[in-house]
Amino acid sequence: MTYGWISLTTDFGLSDGFVAALHGVIARHAPTVRVIDVTHDVHPGDIARGSAVLAQTVPHLPAAVHVAVVDPGVGTRRRGVALSTPAGLLVGPDNGLLPPAADALGGITGAVELTNAEWHGRSVAATFHGRDIFAPVAARLALGVPLAHAGTRLDPASLVRLPPPVVTIGDGYVEAEVLTVDRYGNVQLAATAESLAGLGERVVVGGMRAVRRATFGEVARGELLVFGDSAGHAAVAINGGRAVVALGVEPGDVLRVSTA
Amino acid sequence: MTYGWISLTTDFGLSDGFVAALHGVIARHAPTVRVIDVTHDVHPGDIARGSAVLAQTVPHLPAAVHVAVVDPGVGTRRRGVALSTPAGLLVGPDNGLLPPAADALGGITGAVELTNAEWHGRSVAATFHGRDIFAPVAARLALGVPLAHAGTRLDPASLVRLPPPVVTIGDGYVEAEVLTVDRYGNVQLAATAESLAGLGERVVVGGMRAVRRATFGEVARGELLVFGDSAGHAAVAINGGRAVVALGVEPGDVLRVSTA
Amino acid sequence: MTYGWISLTTDFGLSDGFVAALHGVIARHAPTVRVIDVTHDVHPGDIARGSAVLAQTVPHLPAAVHVAVVDPGVGTRRRGVALSTPAGLLVGPDNGLLPPAADALGGITGAVELTNAEWHGRSVAATFHGRDIFAPVAARLALGVPLAHAGTRLDPASLVRLPPPVVTIGDGYVEAEVLTVDRYGNVQLAATAESLAGLGERVVVGGMRAVRRATFGEVARGELLVFGDSAGHAAVAINGGRAVVALGVEPGDVLRVSTA
Repeated sequence: MTYGWISLTTDFGLSDGFVAALHGVIARHAPTVRVIDVTHDVHPGDIARGSAVLAQTVPHLPAAVHVAVVDPGVGTRRRGVALSTPAGLLVGPDNGLLPPAADALGGITGAVELTNAEWHGRSVAATFHGRDIFAPVAARLALGVPLAHAGTRLDPASLVRLPPPVVTIGDGYVEAEVLTVDRYGNVQLAATAESLAGLGERVVVGGMRAVRRATFGEVARGELLVFGDSAGHAAVAINGGRAVVALGVEPGDVLRVSTA
Repeated sequence: MTYGWISLTTDFGLSDGFVAALHGVIARHAPTVRVIDVTHDVHPGDIARGSAVLAQTVPHLPAAVHVAVVDPGVGTRRRGVALSTPAGLLVGPDNGLLPPAADALGGITGAVELTNAEWHGRSVAATFHGRDIFAPVAARLALGVPLAHAGTRLDPASLVRLPPPVVTIGDGYVEAEVLTVDRYGNVQLAATAESLAGLGERVVVGGMRAVRRATFGEVARGELLVFGDSAGHAAVAINGGRAVVALGVEPGDVLRVSTA
Repeated sequence: MTYGWISLTTDFGLSDGFVAALHGVIARHAPTVRVIDVTHDVHPGDIARGSAVLAQTVPHLPAAVHVAVVDPGVGTRRRGVALSTPAGLLVGPDNGLLPPAADALGGITGAVELTNAEWHGRSVAATFHGRDIFAPVAARLALGVPLAHAGTRLDPASLVRLPPPVVTIGDGYVEAEVLTVDRYGNVQLAATAESLAGLGERVVVGGMRAVRRATFGEVARGELLVFGDSAGHAAVAINGGRAVVALGVEPGDVLRVSTA
């Protein structure tokens, strides 16, 4: 099995040459493989955010080896791993970053710890496993070398997983953790879009009046709406505004949506 | 007619996975086509800004299908459209974003509303037509499927156009709207570089003294200059500084340049 | 000699269409060549920063023509140049930006001033040599046209070089200029990682207590460490924090690391 694409999700930012170094290592090892940058703007060390963006994006990417590096524990004993799924491979640190994306790709069918040092860079920097381990491993996997060659098989049940976000669905209300906030200030909840079905057209969210609609443009400018977003989650937005500011929430906070 | 390139101009930012989803959809539908990102940093909903950046960039790109998504009306009745020009295709919302780029590519030679739902994503999110409509349409057009297959022909005269910016050229002065402000704080006017020809070497701009020169380095550090910029517009800069701060203007403001 | 890759390092930012124009010019002249963006987020005009990022990244890129444009003197008499090295070519302004990268690629083996106007854009904007000179030159060089065709040979000794950063290594201390600060707030010194070898495990840096360790995760959260970074430099970090804030330094400042 070969892959024509490698995707990259990191907290490296674009101001340094770190992302380019990943591109370079991939180009040197697998020059025919093409790279899609998911995002490099995850807040430094924010594993939950990286995990959510990756999981919500991979369903729209071609079959690929997905490399993700949000890795505050780099150089410590946390394992480097590669996971197989029915729809692609995932490579990165074993800190909770990868499993949600694996689930989005159909579930984990195999896992190895990246113990094959022959695949790593000549000298592995203690602070840059993205460049020296994950990228060269991903390049070889994209070229079709079997996963088992990357290292030692491990039990998928032993992988670190983030605690599942809080979601409570009751009679006329949904309480759910804020999963992410996007560029537009839209607030995405951990609850699914379907969970809104039991609520009325007029709701209260975070103490503020809102309506349920399909899209921003269906409400007046400045009005709050609750909707199912493009990733299938319940979400809150303001037409022409930033719901995150109006609600005063951040990822991890619990927000209650109830019939008015 | 096939195109080897698709360009992308959006207000999605790079912090979420939205841009990667466009890349992914294109890669799945048209894996041989390559993508050039024009910018994804248009301020959310700023159609005028997106329109100006796109129009000034397309002349330097290879023949391509240009996708642009600055789309505050997504999910409402605003049309999705594709336009043909002598030098490429344009795909996006009918909200004024595309026509200036079409003009820069030689003018609109045909237009369709994107009514062929068979080309769209399986389920079209009301808030993400970029991923579910514009990208898959662009991929098919790049592969050579005729424009007419994308939907219903429409009269180009019916397309939404932004109001033309204010430009007044008089005896010894030019008054013009600020079109864009770039990364360096340089202030680009809607007037052409040629419109400066009637002015003297010493001018007053926004009440401040300036000189007309070809480039920043020809004036002293901190000095204001008026020049023809790389897109053929009249513009104002400060050597080593930010003219936008000195002038206190923003896009849409009218600035007067007159012989001192 | 042909090159399959061109790398780009600029201070253009990603908000305008300037970077896309470079991609476009390359695509038009050399459609088979692929582009790696090193960074476009160099602070406007910060030659030292652009130079450091480029020099530290090129060793990880494939053989390429590296274009760098941090060019406050654009349009003045500063020369445009192309340099050959054993491991790739460099194209950009003669203002100190390129030589450190050339050194990282094995040293300058040849140099020309870009005087062959036939290779430049039809009309060269006085403010955008990246688009009108450097990119079209790089595209031709990538396609294998000999360096000598790009212009007039020049003596490498005549190239502008930035002053070497301050580094003093003494008995139990290292004093070195801050070279760069990365996305994580880690402070990179001009001194090499090896220069730390003579110091004890407990050190004082900028008046604060720190320990020498290989990576962030080996110290307690909030603790300061001195380490050898992934580019082979001495550097200072805080586990889970921003050393640049704690130390209150910026590039160009001199920092002293001494045995406690």
